[in-house]
Amino acid sequence: MKKHLKQLDLKRIRITDSLFGEYVNKVSEKIIPHQWKILNDQLEDSEPTYCIRNFRIAAGEEKGERKGVVFQDTDLYKWLESVAYTIAGGRGENLEELADEVIDLIGKAQEPDGYLNTYFSINAPTKKWTNLVEGHELYTAGHMIEAAVAYYQATGKEKFLNIARKNADLICRVFGTGEGQKRGYPGHQEIELALVKLYRVTGERAYLHQAEYFIRERGRNPNYLQAEIEGRGHPEFFPEFERYDLEYSQAHKPPVEQDEAVGHAVREMYMCSAMADLAGENDDQQLKDACQRIWNNMTDRRMYITGGIGSSGFRERFTTDYDLPNSTNYSETCASIGVMMFGQRMAAITGDASYYDYVEKALYNTVIAGINIAGDRYFYVNPLEVVPEFCTEHTYMEHVKPVRQKWFGVACCPPNVGRTLASLGQYIYAEDEYGVYINQFISSTADTEVRESRLKIKMNSTLLQDGKVQIEVQSSGPGNLNIRIPWYSEKCECVQNGISIEIQPEKGYQRLSISPGDTYISLDFHVSPRWMGANNGVRADAGKAALMKGPLVYCLEEKENGRYLSEIFIEENTSIEETAPAEELVGNVPTLSYKGIRVRNKGAAGENQLYGNVELEKEEVSLQAVPYCMWNNRGEGEMLVWHKLRV
Amino acid sequence: MKKHLKQLDLKRIRITDSLFGEYVNKVSEKIIPHQWKILNDQLEDSEPTYCIRNFRIAAGEEKGERKGVVFQDTDLYKWLESVAYTIAGGRGENLEELADEVIDLIGKAQEPDGYLNTYFSINAPTKKWTNLVEGHELYTAGHMIEAAVAYYQATGKEKFLNIARKNADLICRVFGTGEGQKRGYPGHQEIELALVKLYRVTGERAYLHQAEYFIRERGRNPNYLQAEIEGRGHPEFFPEFERYDLEYSQAHKPPVEQDEAVGHAVREMYMCSAMADLAGENDDQQLKDACQRIWNNMTDRRMYITGGIGSSGFRERFTTDYDLPNSTNYSETCASIGVMMFGQRMAAITGDASYYDYVEKALYNTVIAGINIAGDRYFYVNPLEVVPEFCTEHTYMEHVKPVRQKWFGVACCPPNVGRTLASLGQYIYAEDEYGVYINQFISSTADTEVRESRLKIKMNSTLLQDGKVQIEVQSSGPGNLNIRIPWYSEKCECVQNGISIEIQPEKGYQRLSISPGDTYISLDFHVSPRWMGANNGVRADAGKAALMKGPLVYCLEEKENGRYLSEIFIEENTSIEETAPAEELVGNVPTLSYKGIRVRNKGAAGENQLYGNVELEKEEVSLQAVPYCMWNNRGEGEMLVWHKLRV
Repeated sequence: MKKHLKQLDLKRIRITDSLFGEYVNKVSEKIIPHQWKILNDQLEDSEPTYCIRNFRIAAGEEKGERKGVVFQDTDLYKWLESVAYTIAGGRGENLEELADEVIDLIGKAQEPDGYLNTYFSINAPTKKWTNLVEGHELYTAGHMIEAAVAYYQATGKEKFLNIARKNADLICRVFGTGEGQKRGYPGHQEIELALVKLYRVTGERAYLHQAEYFIRERGRNPNYLQAEIEGRGHPEFFPEFERYDLEYSQAHKPPVEQDEAVGHAVREMYMCSAMADLAGENDDQQLKDACQRIWNNMTDRRMYITGGIGSSGFRERFTTDYDLPNSTNYSETCASIGVMMFGQRMAAITGDASYYDYVEKALYNTVIAGINIAGDRYFYVNPLEVVPEFCTEHTYMEHVKPVRQKWFGVACCPPNVGRTLASLGQYIYAEDEYGVYINQFISSTADTEVRESRLKIKMNSTLLQDGKVQIEVQSSGPGNLNIRIPWYSEKCECVQNGISIEIQPEKGYQRLSISPGDTYISLDFHVSPRWMGANNGVRADAGKAALMKGPLVYCLEEKENGRYLSEIFIEENTSIEETAPAEELVGNVPTLSYKGIRVRNKGAAGENQLYGNVELEKEEVSLQAVPYCMWNNRGEGEMLVWHKLRV
Repeated sequence: MKKHLKQLDLKRIRITDSLFGEYVNKVSEKIIPHQWKILNDQLEDSEPTYCIRNFRIAAGEEKGERKGVVFQDTDLYKWLESVAYTIAGGRGENLEELADEVIDLIGKAQEPDGYLNTYFSINAPTKKWTNLVEGHELYTAGHMIEAAVAYYQATGKEKFLNIARKNADLICRVFGTGEGQKRGYPGHQEIELALVKLYRVTGERAYLHQAEYFIRERGRNPNYLQAEIEGRGHPEFFPEFERYDLEYSQAHKPPVEQDEAVGHAVREMYMCSAMADLAGENDDQQLKDACQRIWNNMTDRRMYITGGIGSSGFRERFTTDYDLPNSTNYSETCASIGVMMFGQRMAAITGDASYYDYVEKALYNTVIAGINIAGDRYFYVNPLEVVPEFCTEHTYMEHVKPVRQKWFGVACCPPNVGRTLASLGQYIYAEDEYGVYINQFISSTADTEVRESRLKIKMNSTLLQDGKVQIEVQSSGPGNLNIRIPWYSEKCECVQNGISIEIQPEKGYQRLSISPGDTYISLDFHVSPRWMGANNGVRADAGKAALMKGPLVYCLEEKENGRYLSEIFIEENTSIEETAPAEELVGNVPTLSYKGIRVRNKGAAGENQLYGNVELEKEEVSLQAVPYCMWNNRGEGEMLVWHKLRV
């Protein structure tokens, strides 16, 4: 395997994008202060989380019972991770003191041997590491380690990192194949990728080995998780695990032998991210092949056009090839964040830009859809078709919310969106020893050193408007700039310092040689709106088309197009006009306008007739589509991605 | 309120129908002997039910722990009910001895005070009547009483009836508003309609009052079930009841105030059946109005074209108006049996034939679909669209089976289908003091006395073939014959003894005066295949059509039409040809043949492309549809009811 791509230092990237800038700003302005209140139970209209209180009890500063879900500690860790990235991004000066205080508290909550988990320390000290299926101890530790690494990278302060190391050292002692060690592994993967991060900042190979152990041990026979379940006989934390299946947590066979994206979608993505990391670190072709198989199965058969994954609302999981229902799916925001994580790592170990097509798809559609423009409401679940009144409680639709929700007590997605936006730069730029890679066309600045050259990059993208990107590079010496040519580029024109460059991408990247001094690069990807269809295996999308422009999936909303969106049909070759952005949306992204027809059955009309003869009534209608990621920012209403085609 | 319709004595009805005869025969040939083995744990490849064994333990004939689900006793009661109807139908001579023995065993299992429930008698004697939400004690008692009444009616033997009375007397003492009585009511309704039946054969008004009490007390504040749940704090029998909602069991408000079909579909139907009975018995207009509102809401907004109800696979329940997904629904076979029960009673108390349109729809489609032609495989769940590979375990589709299943351990539907088929005559004929009503056009014979006249009826129906029905009546005196004019009759021609009768139906019935002697009636309903559309509220069916002929819904199966049925489109006015019945199906019902087109997207073809440009490829295809009720009798494959329309 060749040398891998690395991330740039987040401290040296600034987001200036008209669309993403809006969301990134919300992290410091809204998400972090709001979550701080939640962690401290300071919101009057919200269920208490007990999060900080649990740490105080564990630290001996307060008395009481530990409350909240078993993995509630991760809320604080994800908050700290967001804070760290925000500090790195130059917007968190006022946060560092608060973070340091909380880190002190975490330190006090840690047991002398390094153990750190408020649930088990306080409520069940004799049950540590006995319920890996449900207990989330290793998952919680993983989020702690990720936060500690991020905080160290942002501030250079070692206290939190040392807490994490002490905990990781304990985990290395407890789990393994040696005498007296438990041959367990997490029910919810996360620790593995965190240990790789910890290895990368500390250079301590034991952490890398431990991550590898967890991946290698998983799914072996005799099956550790199965034995644990049978020993206990009943679920301890989650009654819905009464009928647990090992595929749910990808523990049905060793990951290196797996071929398909299965089970709980977030678990799969976190596991695969670690597998890709390990494949890269260890030059492990078998592991890389397994990653490739799972990635291909996912992107070729089990992913929504919005980059969403997890077709089953029940258990938030993958189902089977081509089973992609549009209204009952889960498509968790966190799972699409996982797609970004896995894709980034696959690109890093292969040098192949095409992985970023999917990172982009997930980011521009499902991940951003997870949060509203104001930055205070969230979707966990991201359907492609919504009729609000059908989203009823206690039914098969109870997971689908027709409007974004306030931050929940058990909240993985909001802080996950927070940390993803706060560290967005990692998905835009990468580098190797010869130069910089541009993976996303999000307006921003970056600077870095490549060998002896210092490169300062300024990217101004109007991709979503006119398909163009301007890049200025100030370089102190020679270097390469590798620009991803995205899948939707119909033709790519590239002009470097006034000279037209012939596009000959390698592994999806166009390499440009940068000379010392100022370089001006002008890209025109020729992006126009287009109707997309699905493979005929996808029964839900047969005879239908979805509208995309560049990476953005568009949708119809009730606001512009009225109710009963399922009555709408379009012609296969309907021409699309780009019109002014919808007023209340952000990023100056055009609305797409086109003609369609509404077809209604007059033969079964009125309040009291459910079925009747077919007597179609047709009406020509003007339709306006807005970016899917910004749906439901203007009140509750129907939404539809896949349009019926007149055939 | 006027005089009500009554059922004819089942002993005097014989089914001779070419379609239904096939199924009815299976009750004595297959269902009853097979279930007897199941009850006795004599099937090697099946999980034991412990049913008879539990009774033996309760009777003191065996030692051991009581096993099986909490309502396992009902299996035996439903078996006995089927046996009783089969005896009444003249096919159960060899069963009576066995039934008498089992009834003796039941008698021994009954406690001295009348209590009868093997779970609570053996395993939890101190917990009787403490878990009405989940414990199914009153539900189980209800099935026992229904069986006892049926057995008494079939054989005239009183032993089982006396067991039932003793049990009912206990229930009357335990539950009520008096001093020392519990103000409870069942979590799963069933006892109410059973008590009405018991009242009708015994004349004991206490049973009618007790049924009324259960309906009146239900859903009152303070809420008994809610208090019970809160007192216990956690579910005892069904972990999925962790988040119980009172609408699930229609206990959110008093039934008489309810307006919509909500919650668990079978519970709703059983409750409404009792409500209709009580409305009739007590001339209670308020209760009748409530029944009417719930019925209308169900049939106008919440029912499949197949007569299926319960849109939500999760919790087997109703959802909301027009939410009728075709592939994820529950549409339990038992719930459609409930539609037949409720509809029959509504017709009885209103004299309105239109209720039988829905009884017929449920019977001819969903109920018969519940069993295979061979009589040994069953569907609980009846979707309108199936892609077998999408029916995956542990996902949102786990309730949907692409092939009928063997009799399950927890088996409500198979014995419910058994007792419904064995008593099919009750849905065909009814009577009042002036004559006989013909509600279904199922070939059969019947005789009864109306005032001083004896009427012998012979009906030969070729409704499903040519829309015609021949009826011969031999009458010893004058009487009326009231013939339901079904909704799908495009024009009705009626000839009585060679004289054409002008059709002027009243409440859906055409009344014919029968004179003493032989009367020959010839009906031609002019039934042709037709494309049906849904109300535009039903998003799942927008732009689609379903094919019906008479009461039968037709469907496409993979066998004749290939895979990827979702690619098929038809013209709104596609002409339909009636062709030879499919060879392996029964009842001599024609296949319907027509043209369509298959539309495939070439722009996203092959193994590795999930989405691509829209490039439609069209191919004309010949399609053949078979009756929905007989789908999946010729191997596993896709199935589709709602066809896409070219608009």
